[in-house]
Formats: sequence, structure tokens, C-alpha cells
Amino acid sequence: MLREPDVLPEWQIATWLNVEAPLEWRELRGQVVLVHAFQMLCPSCVAHGIPQALAVERTFRGEGVRVIGLHSVFEHHEAMTEVALRAFLHEYRIGFPVAIDRPGPEGDRLPCTMAAWGLRGTPSLILFDARGALRLHHFGRIEDLALGAVIGQLLTEARAT
Amino acid sequence: MLREPDVLPEWQIATWLNVEAPLEWRELRGQVVLVHAFQMLCPSCVAHGIPQALAVERTFRGEGVRVIGLHSVFEHHEAMTEVALRAFLHEYRIGFPVAIDRPGPEGDRLPCTMAAWGLRGTPSLILFDARGALRLHHFGRIEDLALGAVIGQLLTEARAT
Amino acid sequence: MLREPDVLPEWQIATWLNVEAPLEWRELRGQVVLVHAFQMLCPSCVAHGIPQALAVERTFRGEGVRVIGLHSVFEHHEAMTEVALRAFLHEYRIGFPVAIDRPGPEGDRLPCTMAAWGLRGTPSLILFDARGALRLHHFGRIEDLALGAVIGQLLTEARAT
Amino acid sequence: MLREPDVLPEWQIATWLNVEAPLEWRELRGQVVLVHAFQMLCPSCVAHGIPQALAVERTFRGEGVRVIGLHSVFEHHEAMTEVALRAFLHEYRIGFPVAIDRPGPEGDRLPCTMAAWGLRGTPSLILFDARGALRLHHFGRIEDLALGAVIGQLLTEARAT
Repeated sequence: MLREPDVLPEWQIATWLNVEAPLEWRELRGQVVLVHAFQMLCPSCVAHGIPQALAVERTFRGEGVRVIGLHSVFEHHEAMTEVALRAFLHEYRIGFPVAIDRPGPEGDRLPCTMAAWGLRGTPSLILFDARGALRLHHFGRIEDLALGAVIGQLLTEARAT
Repeated sequence: MLREPDVLPEWQIATWLNVEAPLEWRELRGQVVLVHAFQMLCPSCVAHGIPQALAVERTFRGEGVRVIGLHSVFEHHEAMTEVALRAFLHEYRIGFPVAIDRPGPEGDRLPCTMAAWGLRGTPSLILFDARGALRLHHFGRIEDLALGAVIGQLLTEARAT
Repeated sequence: MLREPDVLPEWQIATWLNVEAPLEWRELRGQVVLVHAFQMLCPSCVAHGIPQALAVERTFRGEGVRVIGLHSVFEHHEAMTEVALRAFLHEYRIGFPVAIDRPGPEGDRLPCTMAAWGLRGTPSLILFDARGALRLHHFGRIEDLALGAVIGQLLTEARAT
Repeated sequence: MLREPDVLPEWQIATWLNVEAPLEWRELRGQVVLVHAFQMLCPSCVAHGIPQALAVERTFRGEGVRVIGLHSVFEHHEAMTEVALRAFLHEYRIGFPVAIDRPGPEGDRLPCTMAAWGLRGTPSLILFDARGALRLHHFGRIEDLALGAVIGQLLTEARAT
């Protein structure tokens, strides 16, 4: 299921929520990083993607896995504002860091990181290994067993080096 | 489970969505009316209440049951705007009429119908019989079997008169 | 959803479990009677039918609804014996009365009540109104909302007479 | 979550189902082996353990994971016979190999492998790495994410050697 290590450009973030200071791309090395790209009004994100991201955070707490939300709004921009997202995070008790993807250039509906990473929609899961290489890029729903196996592999690789 | 018939004051609505013209309180007589009071950022509404309201509409189509959403915002007012609600209804494919509860007087967080009906929060279910009398007023989750039985009783009463 | 009242022949039972004495067909009049026909090794019965029958018993306790299991074995007869059924009822904490359908004549796989009632398989739901008339005969899964509505109708009819 | 490699005595099997010939303990080396100890009338096995074992088989097909059922009957012996188990496997469409744990000595309710492996009940999950060492011994329910991670780790270790 895992792909050969690949390199993605650094994310471009407008605002960070649930953190004291922005997460620095380079400081995440040494950890397995799961980025969950979502929209707060995407039903499949709310029903499956976000509960799964929360479960990953809970299951692998203290084991070297970092969970980060990426709010990549490409539709209903006027509804999914920062103030609305803050209310959403509060109501759904989402405590992991959430980055708001930087809006694209004037007239472009796609935000910057979504475009640069080639995300096909939401929910999308992007997994980086401890060296920062892209190892999984999944659009849509993924089963817990398969996701767990990928995380288990990346953690084992990280410990071996 | 059903209460003795009671009278509620008419709803006070700011805006109707998913209808061509506002639903008139009096024109609903003759039908069993289920009002589902919700907030678009209320997790229990999204996970249980709204799917249940959609299921009621689907199950009793053509049998004299009317399902109406009541968006009674009492928190995060700046997030749950009309434009946001429209996006929400689109994404969750909610086709039944939705009424936006009229905001309360300046400085009051509770909207008018919510206050007048004594709603304790969201989700709330309010059921009126075919004569317009209040018969069920439920805050929180209610099981499908119990809700179905109430609807079955009200439909049977309506046919008997 | 309900059919016109119809008459079914009385059940033919080999053994009653979870009761002190056999339930007499005539003594059930005045109650709404739900018969859940099942086989202990039928996956859909175990996953849906039996939990639903238990929920009906729990939801309508004291309201004039009687839930009865009918073990109608038409396959794997050598596996679904009385001793196996007793273990099954114990493990699944089924406390309502369960009747073992009388085996058919030599060489016939269908038990007697199943044949007489025209059951198409398991799970099947058979609902009798308070006068003992057949009102619902459903093979396969039925949603809780729809089943609740039928029960609500039959209870309301019973109270009206 | 994984334990230090440990050694378990070889299983003691009365009968193998779903195989042409008994699985030899030594021939499994090189594969990650998941043994799901169950009883066919154990509700938690039927609701969670067996669907999970089937999902593991489906998810890791062709990746070096072997799923094996172990029918360790310690109660209701007269109900959970071989003929009943065969009917159960047929109805639940279980295609992986299933071993019937050898009954214990006269008067002992525990079967031999269950006693030798110190199983506390059903469902139990026992995972062996590719060298045959015991790495996980879990009684009760385990979440898919956690189980997937363990399998991912064992597969990664196996590939590294």
C-alpha cells in the first residue's frame, strides 16, 4: 500500500489553530506525520475522516505520530470561514493542530497547498515518514486496518534508523 | 410516551429555505407535523437527528407526515449564518423545508421560537397531531422504534376522525 | 404498510423455552403479538432480527405488546438442536418466550408452522393485532421506524375498541 | 503494544476444517500468523472478532499474513459440536482454516491448546511473527487501528530480515 518515498513542497498556511506557534515543517522530522485534509462541511470528513484522525491521535499518543488537520476549502468559501471553523473545532472537540490552507490567487477556488500537493478533494490523507518523505496519499475513505498497518510500518522503519 | 394534547404558540420564522413560499401554520392541519429543531454545528444533530428526520420523510412519504427543520441558533451565531446553512443543506442533501428561527431581541442569545416553545437545546423533536396539538416534545436522542410508534399512533388517530 | 386483517392457523409447537407453561394461542388476545421467526445460525437473524425483537420488548414493556420467538429450523437440523438453542438463548441473553416449531413429517425439511404460515425464510416478522388477526408478514430486514409505526397503529386500534 | 518475542508450545488440534491437509506448525514460518480463538456461540466473537479476522484476511491477502481460526470450546460443549461448527462456518462464509482445539482430559472443560497457551476466554487474538515467536496475546476486543499497526510492524520486520 505504501509508495516509494517522494517529496512534497512545504505547506502554505494562512492561520494555525490549536497551537501556540505555527508548526515548522522541518521540526516535524523524526515523527510520522498524518495530515488530514478536510472541509468542515464535507459530510464524509465529518462522519469518517475526522473521527479516524482523532482515533489515530488517541491510539498512537506518545509513540511518535503527529496528527495535523489541514482545512483546504475549495467550495462554499463564504460559509467555511475561520470563525466558523473555530466553532466547528470547539463543538467536535478537535484538539490537534489545524492549519488553514492559504487561499489561492484571486479567482482561483483551490487553496495553495491543495493545489501544490495535487489533492483531489476532501477527505484526503497524506502520510509522511520520519524523514519527511511522502509515503501515502489517499483520497476518500480508508479502512482503519489498512491505515494502522501503514502507520505500523512507518513507525517500525523510524525505529530501525 | 405521548402527552395529552397541548397548544403551542405559532412559530416565528426569519427565513424559509427549500420552499417556494413560507409554510403557513394553519395550512398544515390535517397532517402529522414533525419539527426537528437543530443547529448545523451540533454534532448530535448531524450524527443522529438529521438522518432520523430524513428517514421519517422517506418512510412516511405520501402517508400524511410533514417533516420540517427549524434552525434555532443559540450559540456560535457568527458561524451559523444563513449562507452557511444553505451550504450545509446542499452538502447534506436535505430537501425538506427548513425555517430559520427568528433571532431574539437585542442581547438575547435565544431565538424567538426556541424561547416561546421552551426548547432545552438541540436536537429537539416536536410532534403535532393532525389537529395541530402538540403531542411530543423531546430533547436529545430518541430511538427509531419509539418515534415510529408515536407517528403510527398519530396517523391512526388522524384516520379515525 | 399494514394489510387487511387475515387469519392464520394456530402455531404447532414442539417445545416452549423461557416459559413456565406453553403460551396458549387464545390467551394472547387483547395484546399485540410480535412473532420473530428465526434460526440460531442465521446471520441476519443474529445481527438484526433478534436485537430488534429485544428492542421491541424493551421499548413497549407494559404497553400491551408480546414478543415471542419461533425457532423454525429448515436447514442444518443436526446443528440447531434444542440443547444448542438453549445455549444460544443463554449467551445472547434472550429472555422472551421461544417456541420450537414442530418438525415436519418424515422427509420434509420445513417445520409445521413455517409451512402452514407460508414463511419464506428467516428472519420473518409476523404481527397479530389484539383480536388475533394477522396484520404484518415480513420476510427479511425491516427498519425500526416502519416497525414502530405498525406497532403504534395496532396499539392505538386496540385502545379504541 | 507488542511484547518481546516469546515462545508458545505447538497447538493441539482435534480436527482441521477448510483445509485439504492439517496446517503444520513449522511450515507457517516466514509468514505473520494471526490465530483467532473463538467459540461459535460467543456473541462478541460473532459480532466483532470474526468480522475482524475476515477483514484481516481480506486486507492483507498476498502480503504474507495467515489467518487461522481456533475453535476453543470451554462451555456448552454439547451445543458447539463439529457438525454445528461446520454449519456455522458455512452460514457465516468463513473460508480461512479453522482448527478445533483438542478436548482436555476427562472432566476438564478447557481444551488443550487453550490451557497450554493460557487463553483467558474468547475472543482471543494471538499473533506470531515470521520466525514463529509470540508477539501479541489479546483477550477481548481490539481496535482495528491498533491491530493494523501491529501487523504492519511484524510485516516490516519480516521484510527487513
